[in-house]
Amino acid sequence: MRVIDHVPAAIRSLAPYQPGKPIEELARERGLNPADIVKLASNENPLGMSPKARATLEATAAEGARYPDGNGFVLKEAISRKFGVAPERLVLGNGSNDVLELAARIVLQPGTEAVYSRYAFAVYPLVTQALGARPVQVPARDYGHDLEAMLAAITPRTRVVFLANPNNPTGTFVSGEALAAFLERVPEDVLVVLDEAYGEYLDPAERYDALSWVDRFSNLLVCRTFSKIYGLASLRVGYGVARPELVDVMNRIRQPFNVNSFALTAAAAALEDEAFVARSAELNRRGLQQLYEGFARLGLQWVPSRGNFVMVHVGDAAAVNEALLDRGVIVRPIAGYGLPEWLRVTVGLPEENARFLEALADILPT
Amino acid sequence: MRVIDHVPAAIRSLAPYQPGKPIEELARERGLNPADIVKLASNENPLGMSPKARATLEATAAEGARYPDGNGFVLKEAISRKFGVAPERLVLGNGSNDVLELAARIVLQPGTEAVYSRYAFAVYPLVTQALGARPVQVPARDYGHDLEAMLAAITPRTRVVFLANPNNPTGTFVSGEALAAFLERVPEDVLVVLDEAYGEYLDPAERYDALSWVDRFSNLLVCRTFSKIYGLASLRVGYGVARPELVDVMNRIRQPFNVNSFALTAAAAALEDEAFVARSAELNRRGLQQLYEGFARLGLQWVPSRGNFVMVHVGDAAAVNEALLDRGVIVRPIAGYGLPEWLRVTVGLPEENARFLEALADILPT
Repeated sequence: MRVIDHVPAAIRSLAPYQPGKPIEELARERGLNPADIVKLASNENPLGMSPKARATLEATAAEGARYPDGNGFVLKEAISRKFGVAPERLVLGNGSNDVLELAARIVLQPGTEAVYSRYAFAVYPLVTQALGARPVQVPARDYGHDLEAMLAAITPRTRVVFLANPNNPTGTFVSGEALAAFLERVPEDVLVVLDEAYGEYLDPAERYDALSWVDRFSNLLVCRTFSKIYGLASLRVGYGVARPELVDVMNRIRQPFNVNSFALTAAAAALEDEAFVARSAELNRRGLQQLYEGFARLGLQWVPSRGNFVMVHVGDAAAVNEALLDRGVIVRPIAGYGLPEWLRVTVGLPEENARFLEALADILPT
Repeated sequence: MRVIDHVPAAIRSLAPYQPGKPIEELARERGLNPADIVKLASNENPLGMSPKARATLEATAAEGARYPDGNGFVLKEAISRKFGVAPERLVLGNGSNDVLELAARIVLQPGTEAVYSRYAFAVYPLVTQALGARPVQVPARDYGHDLEAMLAAITPRTRVVFLANPNNPTGTFVSGEALAAFLERVPEDVLVVLDEAYGEYLDPAERYDALSWVDRFSNLLVCRTFSKIYGLASLRVGYGVARPELVDVMNRIRQPFNVNSFALTAAAAALEDEAFVARSAELNRRGLQQLYEGFARLGLQWVPSRGNFVMVHVGDAAAVNEALLDRGVIVRPIAGYGLPEWLRVTVGLPEENARFLEALADILPT
């Protein structure tokens, strides 16, 4: 017997997450100049990091040899001020991925189940399988969540339901009313993880205040991230909001210094930079329009999106993706999500969107 | 039933890690000026972050909205070059804490056991209990590892042995010969996690090359960190070295972007800054001497240390600690380690060590 023989089969057979290809990696692989590469693959903010966040880095570096504040006092205060959520309802994560994993770890073990929709974020089944629990994938409706089907999939073994709204990679959306009605019907002992990574891109008319729902639903955990509209993906920081008793157990198992010092201070500053967030949302609205018009010109089908990305039907997506990479354009193939004829493209700067559309026109048969 | 009722008792009863008190927290609590506070509590490098590491931050910020390279190509190449370890033998972590947790997660589950010494790093029992496995604490010998007793504690249920060398919080050390002999006798299906967080502080005469042992022992995982001598605790980055089959399963369950971009680039630069490391080690040697002499003058007992910290016997350590905090000096009480009469003090700059010794002389009865 060797150590590897004791590793559970569920872990040994786990297919690791496939990230968007980094610019430097494509440059190395195909001998391209990194400056000529356009990356529209990971739903990053094309405006970069909020300048107010960036301005905090120097001061943090002066204390760079110190451990982070393991309690994240400053960031929790900032979130608390901004959204009116008490600090004891907040758990901070090394990206919202960390929060998703903590949520899974407090309730999943072999013999339990996690429910999520088809075409949902790849991390939900990953954290489920890593814990030896059973992932239960519910068929989608029009590429989005079928809430009735998800309710029907809940069994006495279900411990958690993962639900992203807007959804990634499809960009679909469930209204606040529908969500609240769904939450009313989920058994109180089943954790609902509502992943709002893309919530800040919603039009004001469609917004709902899930944070206030934590009062009504003792089984709700709302997850948010600083990796999308706030432009801090490099730093890894996200947060979860839930009742104090759930936050308490998540805090017990999280790594004591899970969020780094630079992330803690930059995120607090980013939260205050409302002008940057508004500018990013507006750029995204116009960019989506630009992409939709381009797709229409090319006669391509797409799924209208509430996020900072859009799913477009290109046929043999693997081949189209290869041809895009040859032209220095990185987008996201989503065959791993069961969508081998589609590509997911992040909304970039106007010139990046144009570069992508031109490359696509060049590649596709006319 | 509510969600909390499904959380395993082992998680609900977990006592969270007690970090060193952050400077800002003490300043808030006691109305002190942060600039007047000396923190010698978390084994941080008093020289700060390596200047070469710091110089990388600006360039990384320019790509701050991008996700990190999830494969850590640049840092793995740097470690590989420096220590002659193939990249497929490397797993990167959000601090070595992350690597310790990954190691535990691949082999521990309810019904299994983890062996470690009394007075060992608090994270070993924490990650064990969080997984519902049984922590088996072996009595220490002269505050250090009793390797014979640890071997005797291994049962058919043992899946991992945690062993820090030098040990924290005691500063004790086991020779390379003794360690290699120990490894020869550990069953091949029991993972040995050799935590070398403080290895760079060892005198050259006492060093041994544990990385090369990975060839001989298929069950060995060596952990190292950039949080100590490299001065990057704020950024969270560490690594593990083991056989590719073990690294592979750890990589499957780690978070896809567990190490942030700033950490990846800064760590690669820090590794090259040999002058900074040598200067830090020399400062530490002299600082330890300064503290030993101070303790001798005060008639206090201490445990000679191979790390960048030293354990000193002060009697009622809780009271002495409170009095030190009143004077703006933060050290580490270690009652949680079963050492209520001792304090662990990190080696600081000469003036910080002096400030601590003066405060101690002021507090202790003469």
